[in-house]
Amino acid sequence: MPTYRAPVKDMNIILNDVLDISQYTHLPGYEDASPDLIAAILEEGAKFCENELAPLNLSGDQEGCTRADDGSVTTPKGFKEAYAKFVEGGWAGLTNDPEMGGQGLPHLLGFAVEEMLISSNMAFAMYPGLSGGAKASITIEGTDEQKAMYLPKMVSGEWTGTMNLTESHCGTDLGLIRTKAVPNSNNSYAITGQKIFISAGEHDMAENIIHLVLAKTPDAPKGVKGISLFIVPKYLVNEDGSLGERNGVVCGSIEEKMGIHGNSTCVLNYDGATGYMLGTENQGLRAMFIMMNAARIGVGMQGLGLSEVAYQNAADYARDRLQMRAISGAKNPDGPADPIIVHPDVRRMLMNSKSFNEAARAQALWCALLIDLSHKAEDEKQREWADDMVSLMTPVIKGVFTDRGYENATASQQVYGGHGYVSEWGMEQFVRDARITQIYEGTNGIQALDLVGRKLGANGGRAIQRFFKYVATEIEAARGNDKIADFVKAVESANADLQRAAMWLMQNAMTNPDNAGAGSTAFMHLFGHVTLGLMWMKIAKISADKLDEGTDDPTFFENKLITGRYYINRRMPEIKFLLAELEAGADDVMALEAANF
Amino acid sequence: MPTYRAPVKDMNIILNDVLDISQYTHLPGYEDASPDLIAAILEEGAKFCENELAPLNLSGDQEGCTRADDGSVTTPKGFKEAYAKFVEGGWAGLTNDPEMGGQGLPHLLGFAVEEMLISSNMAFAMYPGLSGGAKASITIEGTDEQKAMYLPKMVSGEWTGTMNLTESHCGTDLGLIRTKAVPNSNNSYAITGQKIFISAGEHDMAENIIHLVLAKTPDAPKGVKGISLFIVPKYLVNEDGSLGERNGVVCGSIEEKMGIHGNSTCVLNYDGATGYMLGTENQGLRAMFIMMNAARIGVGMQGLGLSEVAYQNAADYARDRLQMRAISGAKNPDGPADPIIVHPDVRRMLMNSKSFNEAARAQALWCALLIDLSHKAEDEKQREWADDMVSLMTPVIKGVFTDRGYENATASQQVYGGHGYVSEWGMEQFVRDARITQIYEGTNGIQALDLVGRKLGANGGRAIQRFFKYVATEIEAARGNDKIADFVKAVESANADLQRAAMWLMQNAMTNPDNAGAGSTAFMHLFGHVTLGLMWMKIAKISADKLDEGTDDPTFFENKLITGRYYINRRMPEIKFLLAELEAGADDVMALEAANF
Repeated sequence: MPTYRAPVKDMNIILNDVLDISQYTHLPGYEDASPDLIAAILEEGAKFCENELAPLNLSGDQEGCTRADDGSVTTPKGFKEAYAKFVEGGWAGLTNDPEMGGQGLPHLLGFAVEEMLISSNMAFAMYPGLSGGAKASITIEGTDEQKAMYLPKMVSGEWTGTMNLTESHCGTDLGLIRTKAVPNSNNSYAITGQKIFISAGEHDMAENIIHLVLAKTPDAPKGVKGISLFIVPKYLVNEDGSLGERNGVVCGSIEEKMGIHGNSTCVLNYDGATGYMLGTENQGLRAMFIMMNAARIGVGMQGLGLSEVAYQNAADYARDRLQMRAISGAKNPDGPADPIIVHPDVRRMLMNSKSFNEAARAQALWCALLIDLSHKAEDEKQREWADDMVSLMTPVIKGVFTDRGYENATASQQVYGGHGYVSEWGMEQFVRDARITQIYEGTNGIQALDLVGRKLGANGGRAIQRFFKYVATEIEAARGNDKIADFVKAVESANADLQRAAMWLMQNAMTNPDNAGAGSTAFMHLFGHVTLGLMWMKIAKISADKLDEGTDDPTFFENKLITGRYYINRRMPEIKFLLAELEAGADDVMALEAANF
Repeated sequence: MPTYRAPVKDMNIILNDVLDISQYTHLPGYEDASPDLIAAILEEGAKFCENELAPLNLSGDQEGCTRADDGSVTTPKGFKEAYAKFVEGGWAGLTNDPEMGGQGLPHLLGFAVEEMLISSNMAFAMYPGLSGGAKASITIEGTDEQKAMYLPKMVSGEWTGTMNLTESHCGTDLGLIRTKAVPNSNNSYAITGQKIFISAGEHDMAENIIHLVLAKTPDAPKGVKGISLFIVPKYLVNEDGSLGERNGVVCGSIEEKMGIHGNSTCVLNYDGATGYMLGTENQGLRAMFIMMNAARIGVGMQGLGLSEVAYQNAADYARDRLQMRAISGAKNPDGPADPIIVHPDVRRMLMNSKSFNEAARAQALWCALLIDLSHKAEDEKQREWADDMVSLMTPVIKGVFTDRGYENATASQQVYGGHGYVSEWGMEQFVRDARITQIYEGTNGIQALDLVGRKLGANGGRAIQRFFKYVATEIEAARGNDKIADFVKAVESANADLQRAAMWLMQNAMTNPDNAGAGSTAFMHLFGHVTLGLMWMKIAKISADKLDEGTDDPTFFENKLITGRYYINRRMPEIKFLLAELEAGADDVMALEAANF
């Protein structure tokens, strides 16, 4: 069975050294986030994930969720008890508003803990994970009454939340939804329709589930301009906060799917269920995007979390498994064969993962800091700047982290040879679980289009110009140390290539918009190399400084330099391919008649 | 449920036009292989695969194989009946020696039919597929008695065969095997040990199963020089050919695995089972490699077959599914949305598959022709040349086709969005089935090492030099037609890059052998681009000629030019990345201490 060791040391160093969060003590929530407090929380989170959640991952996959005839759903053995401990430990409200009962800690810490939850048990992590988006939407769009009624119990974790977007005929194209919301006399609506693919849609772990549901009011305009968002609790809530009658929403079936079997992915049937409008009529999509953006970054974290845990197990296996001799001469002459970690091609697979994971972790935590800055910075300009960065990072983290997560989970499975294909080793589960992350919350193709079609051009290209400038500033800051000159050079070159690609898109999408669509995925991955390369440059700078200054763990920082060099020398050259693919344009993509595929 | 349409027209044109097999009527088996006969056999094969096998694919996955307490295995519903029809139709012995009851047709046809079998039902195709390698080994290594005893029933398909290599502690490193073969008094051996991952190891479709088993005799030398190969029939065979007593080999369990659930992957326990040595004592590995090479190309075909069927279904879905509007303006203005095939990023995924499938099919059939030439050409030089080419193509086809097969199956699943993750659509099965092809019969890392470490240097680099020369000749032959000048240029450039990579490996592996290991996978994929590009150049030449001459189906050939251009413009630029990765060398790969992963 796979094991998991939370990368606590790495997280501490990213937070305290690479991102130097001590600069931000003026932000609400950061005042108290001292290195000691951070370390303590990460240690506690690590213990919970390693000891309570990881042991339930394989059994949760094998057992899956079961639906009874009345529509109730039983989660795998141990999930309910683990969730109770999760709530008891205060993990549900870690970063939520203290006024609602949360701990008000920085998103940074929430992201770090989220990675651990996912690595140890992604199917479990999705139950509280979905609540996060729902809480964010109610916080921003809800009336005071709605907030008071729902948030405290959601923050404590006693209740969970869901997102209900998809119907069988529409996923990406939400303008097509058919679910109806007909006004009742008492300010509520009667919601009727069927939603599919609802993660954590029904379960036995919490006493109530707050569904956020997209639906159309009777005279709503056509398309996306006629969508409203509704709060539909599984149990209606009385004025005094106690649970009232069971609402008209039932799990019709659990989807049979490739992975995440421990999470109940439901078809939910709404039959005149009572719902309450959240936010403004016909502006449900905007409200939904509050959820969606949080969820997209969360999905990106799933890519990282699975890449990390799969890598850890593959590295352990590669150290243990004896097979063949090193090409450069026996390394374990007294044994029957050498451990397979001596073979360069095995290391290649491990290093591909490792060199992604460590930079991706830094990027994710940087993005968390940006989210906090975008909400909490005093200076409006700084909030706007941070928000611009988050708008770019959201599709990049979702799209790139999940594509790499699947690739790395696959490569880690490959390290096991035939044993990787057999269920009992747990490696094939990581691959099946990782596969959904490229699909849900907007397929990665949609992420790439969001980046190229919406984010690049927004406000006259303000965000991307700011990003280029930021990278240039970071390059200048790193240029001082000759020992990392190769990192600086790599990021400089990559940033220039990204600028060239962005310019190409702007020029060529005007003559033919398909040029943007045909190059969007390549552009997103090119962007990913720039941000990951940038993170490596920052990590390399800190590492070189630490080694210069003297540190009690030089090996840790030397390994950072080794791993970073692997990334810039062996991974970033993919940029040249991506640029060529992008600049090849749309002609060859669009030439074939649809009938001739 | 997925459907399948065998690409019969494409196969006919590759055989008759691209490879022009009418040149080879002097080879045994080719005399009668007229275009009409080929077309008739392909049509029959297509019917069988489309109508009998494809409908059993999804149900076979869902049902899986069942082992009873006595070790007997029941295959999924319909498999036994379909296999009976397979035998009745004469498909088992299509390319086998007429003296043993085979039809003696060219391997070319066998490969084409194999692709159809795999696309329609890979788990089924593996039952007769494994027999192929076993028949080849007995044909080459067996005594006349052994051939007479086993081959006719295996050729007819009444009996099937297996390959027994792996034990739980050794897969790649066969020198470590522990299965013992102790001589009996009567020229037979008592085989004792446990083999794992034995595909088609036990089932109810044939009356006997002929296991070929690697084992060590009591005084065998250590390592791979002490391995012998044994024939171990499930039922002993009497002198008169009738079945005798049940042999001491039993299925201990069926592996729970990620995919190919319709195939019984067995743990086989040998408890003093009676075995007969095949070939020379202690030279079992050589005998095994006869099987293995055939099997490796067969696994490569699995990559192609799954890529093809997944692509076909994704293309159908993309034409049907209505979602969003084309970025260049509505294409289906009267409908609620446009079919998703209008979106460039969806087309990108489809074209990646299509542009691989059609060239890979040509490459596979070319390889089949080379196999026939290597056995049957009158001129010894030509046999040697063909054998050199096959030695290079084997790891390239196995490694590249299966990596691409998995990638393309994944991309085709992606076209379905969330529906692709749900089992009932069948797309996730293609991904799970494809995953094993990168692992078994030697992981793709082993293929890359075989190519770089053994094949490149063999006979002073004779094979690779011959390959470069062959490509140069083909380039010259294609240079005449200006309409395909872009294809010629692309292949010329790719071939130069491959030469540069080969040269780099030769020079740098001398100073540090890890440089070969660290670059082997990149080299293999670079090689794949050259061979696939070469195939596109040949197809483009035929297509341009046909269009010049006038043809009754110009669209078919115009589509070839479009699809080929997609490959050379958007896929082959990956070569620059692969070359950079290779030339980055082993240093960054090997720098980290094993303990620090």
